[in-house]
Amino acid sequence: MTNPIETLQSLLGDKLDGVNHLIATRMASENAPRIPEVTAHLINAGGKRVRPMLTLAAADICGYEGDNDVKLAATVEFIHTATLLHDDVVDESEQRRGRPTANLLWDNQSSVLVGDYLFARSFQLMVETDSIRVLDILANAAAVIAEGEVLQLSVARNLSTTADTYIRVVRGKTAALFSAATQVGGVIAGTSPEREKALYDYGDALGIAFQIADDLLDLTGDEASIGKRTGDDLREGKLTLPVILSVAQADDAERAFWQRVIGKGRVEEGDVPRAVEIMRARGALEETRARALNWSAAARQSLDILPGGPAQDALHDLAGFVVSRIA
Amino acid sequence: MTNPIETLQSLLGDKLDGVNHLIATRMASENAPRIPEVTAHLINAGGKRVRPMLTLAAADICGYEGDNDVKLAATVEFIHTATLLHDDVVDESEQRRGRPTANLLWDNQSSVLVGDYLFARSFQLMVETDSIRVLDILANAAAVIAEGEVLQLSVARNLSTTADTYIRVVRGKTAALFSAATQVGGVIAGTSPEREKALYDYGDALGIAFQIADDLLDLTGDEASIGKRTGDDLREGKLTLPVILSVAQADDAERAFWQRVIGKGRVEEGDVPRAVEIMRARGALEETRARALNWSAAARQSLDILPGGPAQDALHDLAGFVVSRIA
Repeated sequence: MTNPIETLQSLLGDKLDGVNHLIATRMASENAPRIPEVTAHLINAGGKRVRPMLTLAAADICGYEGDNDVKLAATVEFIHTATLLHDDVVDESEQRRGRPTANLLWDNQSSVLVGDYLFARSFQLMVETDSIRVLDILANAAAVIAEGEVLQLSVARNLSTTADTYIRVVRGKTAALFSAATQVGGVIAGTSPEREKALYDYGDALGIAFQIADDLLDLTGDEASIGKRTGDDLREGKLTLPVILSVAQADDAERAFWQRVIGKGRVEEGDVPRAVEIMRARGALEETRARALNWSAAARQSLDILPGGPAQDALHDLAGFVVSRIA
Repeated sequence: MTNPIETLQSLLGDKLDGVNHLIATRMASENAPRIPEVTAHLINAGGKRVRPMLTLAAADICGYEGDNDVKLAATVEFIHTATLLHDDVVDESEQRRGRPTANLLWDNQSSVLVGDYLFARSFQLMVETDSIRVLDILANAAAVIAEGEVLQLSVARNLSTTADTYIRVVRGKTAALFSAATQVGGVIAGTSPEREKALYDYGDALGIAFQIADDLLDLTGDEASIGKRTGDDLREGKLTLPVILSVAQADDAERAFWQRVIGKGRVEEGDVPRAVEIMRARGALEETRARALNWSAAARQSLDILPGGPAQDALHDLAGFVVSRIA
């Protein structure tokens, strides 16, 4: 399979240049030069601009001909960047995309405040589209994102977390912005409610498939390609899907293991491979993989009622691509 | 003088009840119970609801009869609460309004994420007013607030900070939300551009007067009434106006003192009274006080072109009240 991200990049090339130009212009701050420094560190760190491409592709599929898609694509990338800055503070992360995080290079303060600035900038950009519907969708997405992050924090290290709660967290931390990104692309094109819903459903399912695959890669991926140490989620006490599925079937010894590693956060040498071994024995890795593939299939299926064309084909392939790393 | 905050509270009583009800409803989160816990800690901590009252009073002066003023007043309080949560993380504060801060009671993570949630909630509320103009004003205010905070962070401990930079920081951290609060009150009432500008100017000058008075009280106020230790700004290396004015006139010994305390952050026993003594000798406290009074007078004067009435009288008195603690 050709890489659908590259296909989207070449299909949407001019629009993407517009997005990058707008991002560069709007991240400037005459009053506070630290803002573009911190922002540039993240924005130029080789992110693939997946979320902006979702907006551009959705607008393209729906036949949009104006330039609000570029504004909304930049909006979505600013929201994404703001949440990354805040996440790294919350998680006390030291690496992101294989480079030191902003909170490590500058300080937590800068990450919090520059994140706030980017939220405000994203908000200014979307106001420029003059569409209350778009503002409503993105405001709701911002609330779901923050709620998902707080929920994740409050269930951290809690072994009684269910797979349902997991999905609510994932909708917040990943899927809400994916689905808002695709939906607003349709909205500005004035598409029908059915198509708008299809675009929303696609983004939602894509985000969930992507996040479940990410959970799996954290355990079984290779450090060079994931850009961080394997097992970081485990060390942070995150209740990822493979952990939740394993805990549900644990015998007494395994339960004690999960309680020590996740519940108490007392991680010892060799715990990551041992966790993977237990997960494998319990079929939790296989089940996690199957669920990611189901969400990927659901994403592809949502596209069926849309009019078709190269951008739609690329989104179709993208849903397969996000799970190809675990296939 | 009767307390104009009490006058406003009694004038705007029903509307304020509506604001408090809306705040209580909208700070709830079905998915993440920690959100209302953290929010309630701050929202119920005896804040005076000054900012919401500014919006309600401005709308009242301009003859507004709908109920979007209540939504916008709650919006403004949510933005304020979100910035307090983030500020306390950035400043590593331990006390706010005489009580332990949320970052101390819960953790920095909760403060960052609940702050993000409240920003998103404020954003949802303002979208409900259906007014792009209002959204534009509040989005710009949010950007100026974050920019001011980052600017403050980047000039911390820098003795070459000028009084002009100081005013830019203060516009961000305090005046931007005051002026947006009064301006949007006029906007939803459909007032004239002149009156809208007068309301903006009032909020701007009031915010600056308030912040300069606050700087002075941090040094000369009494701990019980300011709800925190005196000298906290000094210990945090903040370039407040009295410091800036003193540094500008410092002899070699004083310069070395400021360099150690503010520049290096090496605060020793007895430094706060010594700083106050130097400021007094250099006339910096008197000059700071004079500037606060000027801004207060400018705020009152901005009101002159407005139609008058009890709410306007109360705003007039409020501008005197915020500097009465230093008069």
